[in-house]
Amino acid sequence: MSPTPDSAVRSYIEQHRAAFLDDLAEWLRIPSVSAQPDHAPDVRRSADWLAATLTDTGFPTVEVWETPGAPAVFASWPAEDPAAPTVLVYGHHDVQPAAREDGWHSDPFEPVVRDGRLYARGAADDKGQVFFHTLGVRAHLAATGRTAPAVHLKLLVEGEEESGSPHFRALVEDRAERLTADAVIVSDTGMWAEDTPTVCTGMRGLAECEITLHGPDQDIHSGSFGGAVPNPATEIARLVAALHDDHARVAVPGFYDGVVDLTDRERALFAELPFDEARWLRTASSHATRGEAGHTTLERVWARPTAEVNGIGGGYQGPGSKTIVPSSAMVKLSFRLVAGQDPDHIEKAVRAWAADRVPAGIRCEITFGPATRPCLTPLDHPALTSVARAMGRAFESPVLFTREGGSGPAADLQEVLGAPVLFLGISVPSDGWHAPDEKVELDLLLKGVETTAYLWGDLAESWRRAP
Amino acid sequence: MSPTPDSAVRSYIEQHRAAFLDDLAEWLRIPSVSAQPDHAPDVRRSADWLAATLTDTGFPTVEVWETPGAPAVFASWPAEDPAAPTVLVYGHHDVQPAAREDGWHSDPFEPVVRDGRLYARGAADDKGQVFFHTLGVRAHLAATGRTAPAVHLKLLVEGEEESGSPHFRALVEDRAERLTADAVIVSDTGMWAEDTPTVCTGMRGLAECEITLHGPDQDIHSGSFGGAVPNPATEIARLVAALHDDHARVAVPGFYDGVVDLTDRERALFAELPFDEARWLRTASSHATRGEAGHTTLERVWARPTAEVNGIGGGYQGPGSKTIVPSSAMVKLSFRLVAGQDPDHIEKAVRAWAADRVPAGIRCEITFGPATRPCLTPLDHPALTSVARAMGRAFESPVLFTREGGSGPAADLQEVLGAPVLFLGISVPSDGWHAPDEKVELDLLLKGVETTAYLWGDLAESWRRAP
Repeated sequence: MSPTPDSAVRSYIEQHRAAFLDDLAEWLRIPSVSAQPDHAPDVRRSADWLAATLTDTGFPTVEVWETPGAPAVFASWPAEDPAAPTVLVYGHHDVQPAAREDGWHSDPFEPVVRDGRLYARGAADDKGQVFFHTLGVRAHLAATGRTAPAVHLKLLVEGEEESGSPHFRALVEDRAERLTADAVIVSDTGMWAEDTPTVCTGMRGLAECEITLHGPDQDIHSGSFGGAVPNPATEIARLVAALHDDHARVAVPGFYDGVVDLTDRERALFAELPFDEARWLRTASSHATRGEAGHTTLERVWARPTAEVNGIGGGYQGPGSKTIVPSSAMVKLSFRLVAGQDPDHIEKAVRAWAADRVPAGIRCEITFGPATRPCLTPLDHPALTSVARAMGRAFESPVLFTREGGSGPAADLQEVLGAPVLFLGISVPSDGWHAPDEKVELDLLLKGVETTAYLWGDLAESWRRAP
Repeated sequence: MSPTPDSAVRSYIEQHRAAFLDDLAEWLRIPSVSAQPDHAPDVRRSADWLAATLTDTGFPTVEVWETPGAPAVFASWPAEDPAAPTVLVYGHHDVQPAAREDGWHSDPFEPVVRDGRLYARGAADDKGQVFFHTLGVRAHLAATGRTAPAVHLKLLVEGEEESGSPHFRALVEDRAERLTADAVIVSDTGMWAEDTPTVCTGMRGLAECEITLHGPDQDIHSGSFGGAVPNPATEIARLVAALHDDHARVAVPGFYDGVVDLTDRERALFAELPFDEARWLRTASSHATRGEAGHTTLERVWARPTAEVNGIGGGYQGPGSKTIVPSSAMVKLSFRLVAGQDPDHIEKAVRAWAADRVPAGIRCEITFGPATRPCLTPLDHPALTSVARAMGRAFESPVLFTREGGSGPAADLQEVLGAPVLFLGISVPSDGWHAPDEKVELDLLLKGVETTAYLWGDLAESWRRAP
């Protein structure tokens, strides 16, 4: 089969662009924040909205799958050729918490377009990226004259990714027969820059915990008792300070056990990217780099494990002062993991490390949330070439290779389904994931549509030719 | 003049006990929290209430003194004998913040009596202790048949003690002529135990600051950027961890400059007290002692300077998780100071220490609140003997000597007025200053009344005999 005519794809997208953006805005208005229990009805509404939209798109099978937490959405559209490969697209419809007072210039759940950018919580992470698959498959059909996609196409859009996907693995295990695929395409990552299209080849894993130290049974007077009893706020600080050594390496014994180091080829691929530290710092809203000795910034965020404080709190934080020794203090920690690290081993290591460091008179309570495993695409997999080629056509530019510092449940799909995982994401670092003023570049969003319009034909073709 | 007949004093107190407690409860209902700006009208109401009550008590001069912050109350009652000594009583009418949800068993601003204890914010610190002077002076007059006290009696009750007395020194300087006194009696401390009456001979000073570390301009994604930029929550923890060395000594260079060490006699006086560590720990609601190496618990809380975390906060502290590198983090620190330490020197030392330790990419902002100087009563002052004797009569028990770990603006009075400062307090350690369920023991409160009923005659007599 000859390649889909690019002009036909582009004109179809242009004709349907306005309605596509209106629909996305409607979805973004639903505040599907999975981490906040009072938004549970919104997460459900988001799932129902997506299911209805996928039915409108043409998927013959669309189902809302219940979990003990938030629902996921499953859709499938078989190819006409039974021998065609099966592709499972993964994304998520829940979003990070967001409030206007966090520093947003407009309501996070009232999408607005400014300067070619669509601002809203979830615009890039991940509703926008899930959504380009809807217009993408229709452009693929329209441009090729097909009535069904060139591949057996499945979509799985979960509702708890921003809460660590606590029920995702069980869901995938339970529904493994419905989810079987020859390849998994994850659309929940980004690319290097607007003018540098890239394919991501790996994501870090994630283990999260909250440590609470309990000292006095109640807040006590710092004048009457201070200096003679242990202070849990001081002790939580000492614990956090002990997380890293002087080379910014994680100092928890056993933390680096099994870590797969970068190969020379991987380091070389990283080095091909036009990295500009000043520009990267602007994207990071930061004023200096700092990280594990012996590694570049890209290696630090993509291929090295970390221990990060997401929140710390204890004692009096209101206006003025209150001279107390606080009763307790807590820290929320997250550990990014790389290939070779096991979340269960990390949990054991952190528990042992903390227990060792807490002094007499302080009680230590640690709760680990659900973990996400790290994930790495084999660099020599033929489907990686298909994704890079479809992207190259859409962007009319060579495609380079990156990794992603963030985490997703892709590794569970790889493990349970036994299928290789590929990443197709069009977000750029300035999109503000998890931050105020999250946005997506409209031009890139439409390039995402276009990439998927080319991808299914290319993948079916590669599959036919594969040995 | 013969001593006031003790029985006359006691029967007078017994007759007026009920009305006295009703009046105190009325005052305690006013939530005069000076640290919280929305309670400013309550602090004013508290001053007005006290002024009216002092007028009712019989003080011929009662004035509400304005400051740039909360008002103070001044009252004076001259003796008939112009040659009588002048005594200035100091206390405060503002209270610490309190909310039912902090762990109170009843509303902190709705006083209740349970088991002979009056529970309310301010019951012990310091409204109860200010208030025993009202019935005390009336008992003194009734039992001696006087129409004016044996000493020229002045009261100064400030409204910002729990906020570090920011305008107190200026007020005392401005009104120094009205405040001249031969001795200052501070009623804002405690005694050893219900069955061990003691006189306090010193208080620690206090310097307070808030340190905020600013990192990224906004919260950023810990997956995309974590591990490669400095995290202000991690850095605030490292700063706090560096406050103390492994011997729990404060590690800020210059912190111990000028510290007056304990003499052998002072250590011996401390050692006379029946210290029971298990009991002390119960009072501290704590589960272990911990403090500066080479010192006993009493030395640590009374005579050694400290650095304490009163509050720490940064990043996401809500339910669930939020995988960010937070934009900023802060810590509220307080330093207890002992004789020989200068708050200005401490501020300079802390600023230099913090500036030295903050890495590139982190901006450090430090705000110091107003400081309170440390204070020490000369052990050989004859007025100390008068206070101990009056207390011994009231309690019918020998009186021992202690210090207080807390802080008050007594040192300013000593410095500006050039008068020795003595401490007369009847609170016990279990009274829960600054904590939930603050209370005062009713029996002790009435012993405070009785002590002052004896004190003015004793002091006038000592003065007359003094060389």
